[in-house]
Amino acid sequence: VKAVWLEGGQLRLRHSVPVPEPPADEALVRVLRAGICNTDVELARGYYPYAGVLGHEFVGVVERGPDALMGRRVVGEINATCGACGPCRAGRRTHCERRTVLGIVNRHGAFAEYLTLPLQNLHLVPDGVSEDAAVFTEPLAAALEIQEQVHIAPGDRVLVVGDGKLGQLVAQTLALTDCDLLVVGRHGPKLTLLTERGIASTAAETIPAGSFDIAVECTGNHLGFGLAQRALRPRGTLVMKSTYADQLTLDASAIVVHELTIIGSRCGPFPKALAVLAEQKVDVLPLVQAHYPLERALDAFDHAQRPGTMKVLFDVAEV
Amino acid sequence: VKAVWLEGGQLRLRHSVPVPEPPADEALVRVLRAGICNTDVELARGYYPYAGVLGHEFVGVVERGPDALMGRRVVGEINATCGACGPCRAGRRTHCERRTVLGIVNRHGAFAEYLTLPLQNLHLVPDGVSEDAAVFTEPLAAALEIQEQVHIAPGDRVLVVGDGKLGQLVAQTLALTDCDLLVVGRHGPKLTLLTERGIASTAAETIPAGSFDIAVECTGNHLGFGLAQRALRPRGTLVMKSTYADQLTLDASAIVVHELTIIGSRCGPFPKALAVLAEQKVDVLPLVQAHYPLERALDAFDHAQRPGTMKVLFDVAEV
Repeated sequence: VKAVWLEGGQLRLRHSVPVPEPPADEALVRVLRAGICNTDVELARGYYPYAGVLGHEFVGVVERGPDALMGRRVVGEINATCGACGPCRAGRRTHCERRTVLGIVNRHGAFAEYLTLPLQNLHLVPDGVSEDAAVFTEPLAAALEIQEQVHIAPGDRVLVVGDGKLGQLVAQTLALTDCDLLVVGRHGPKLTLLTERGIASTAAETIPAGSFDIAVECTGNHLGFGLAQRALRPRGTLVMKSTYADQLTLDASAIVVHELTIIGSRCGPFPKALAVLAEQKVDVLPLVQAHYPLERALDAFDHAQRPGTMKVLFDVAEV
Repeated sequence: VKAVWLEGGQLRLRHSVPVPEPPADEALVRVLRAGICNTDVELARGYYPYAGVLGHEFVGVVERGPDALMGRRVVGEINATCGACGPCRAGRRTHCERRTVLGIVNRHGAFAEYLTLPLQNLHLVPDGVSEDAAVFTEPLAAALEIQEQVHIAPGDRVLVVGDGKLGQLVAQTLALTDCDLLVVGRHGPKLTLLTERGIASTAAETIPAGSFDIAVECTGNHLGFGLAQRALRPRGTLVMKSTYADQLTLDASAIVVHELTIIGSRCGPFPKALAVLAEQKVDVLPLVQAHYPLERALDAFDHAQRPGTMKVLFDVAEV
């Protein structure tokens, strides 16, 4: 079957990858849709060592597994964990010391006709949620992770730095808290998407210093980080939501003098993301900008890397 | 009267500074002892712009003020605040937008025969606490601030990076929590001081990666920061307790992937510091390495800057 394969920094479509054989406690999933994430782009550029099938945002149908799941649409948490190491036993499963990660670490990913994942990673997709929307479960869960880590109260002044696909999801989920939200970005059409959701945004380069309780950095570069840091009030909280390709240089004195808190934030709660999608509390479909078949994987990656591009999806199969 | 004056990056002893006139709501304090802190050294080196009398760690006697304070020994919180700005009204007085800071920002400091401070900044020194010990109230309060910001439970694995005077106070205060404490440092005699307090320490360059719940960075340099970061388990907390003279370059991806929390930490609770001194729960006197009169201020600063030096005190007057 077909799969988008990364090896030695080269991305290519392979046509005759064997259908994977699910180990005990794993299911075989036929992929319907999959989404290209910035992490995929960075992996393809060789920023991290990985060889195998790329992709970790997907929705699929269970083809082999327990009766209760057979033929059902599922999404899947990307960290496959051992359950026995210190972090697993401490309830921090996404930090399992022996984890494999779908399409990222030692586990073939979702840009393929089939994948396997542990049963405990799978979540049923509610009937009302379309395939295009369900693909967003993983990044939406990551956006909701912020609320697991930081208490956000109604009226809190919250700044989101970045109007890309991550910033959009972060903004839409933060808006659910009734905080006093502002998104700073550079791209007119992306800011318009926010306006249509009733979310305040600005393209201003200068944000009033010291005026936000919480800032969420969604750009992955040091300019975004610096903007977020300066915007925070004393004892404010900066959430680092992006992956960073480079080292980050920052003003350490300011962190100490203003007693800032900086929190790294990664994978989040799938059940909450699916609930938010089912209840239509967020609208992810306007973020979809293109659909490609797996056969045009290289074109899809080119498209995803064009400046200003939001979500590019692979249409792998129909239900 | 005499005062140690910083101006244009030059430190000098002035002999005929007028006795300061306390404004309404401030007291006139005759200084008994004062301590040289790394911040003073950095100010003298010109890292921050400041002109005036240096010094912010002191114990003194009230010479003009309310009857209840007259002739009593006091220590003083260093941030003089407006009480009216946003941070003040939100209870974050040490972050007052219009604050002056004793010997640091727009307020003459403690390396002088007299100083003034607002009445609300002053705390009576309990009878059993000597002048040499009382001088440590301010840095001890700063060490105790960590426990105001981070919940530390018995058995938590806590690493202190740095065995200097700040690291020593941090270690002694953390030991009161019954956490599982380890200090990493480079200096045999300083590690011996810890051993004498029953605190585990090591001079090893390599700390087991991912093994600590909390790490407190007390070196103020990027090597210490990197060591602290690598020592943390996923979702661990790094407390930045030092002032940093330079920019800090760090591994941003690791912060996100491991979902670390980084917290800047500055001034702390004086009443708790005085209680800890009065109850002899810490022993600060072994940290005192030299006493100088104000007349030998330049020698005192030379001494304080010698590698490996702990606390250098000014003996300004006797009770």
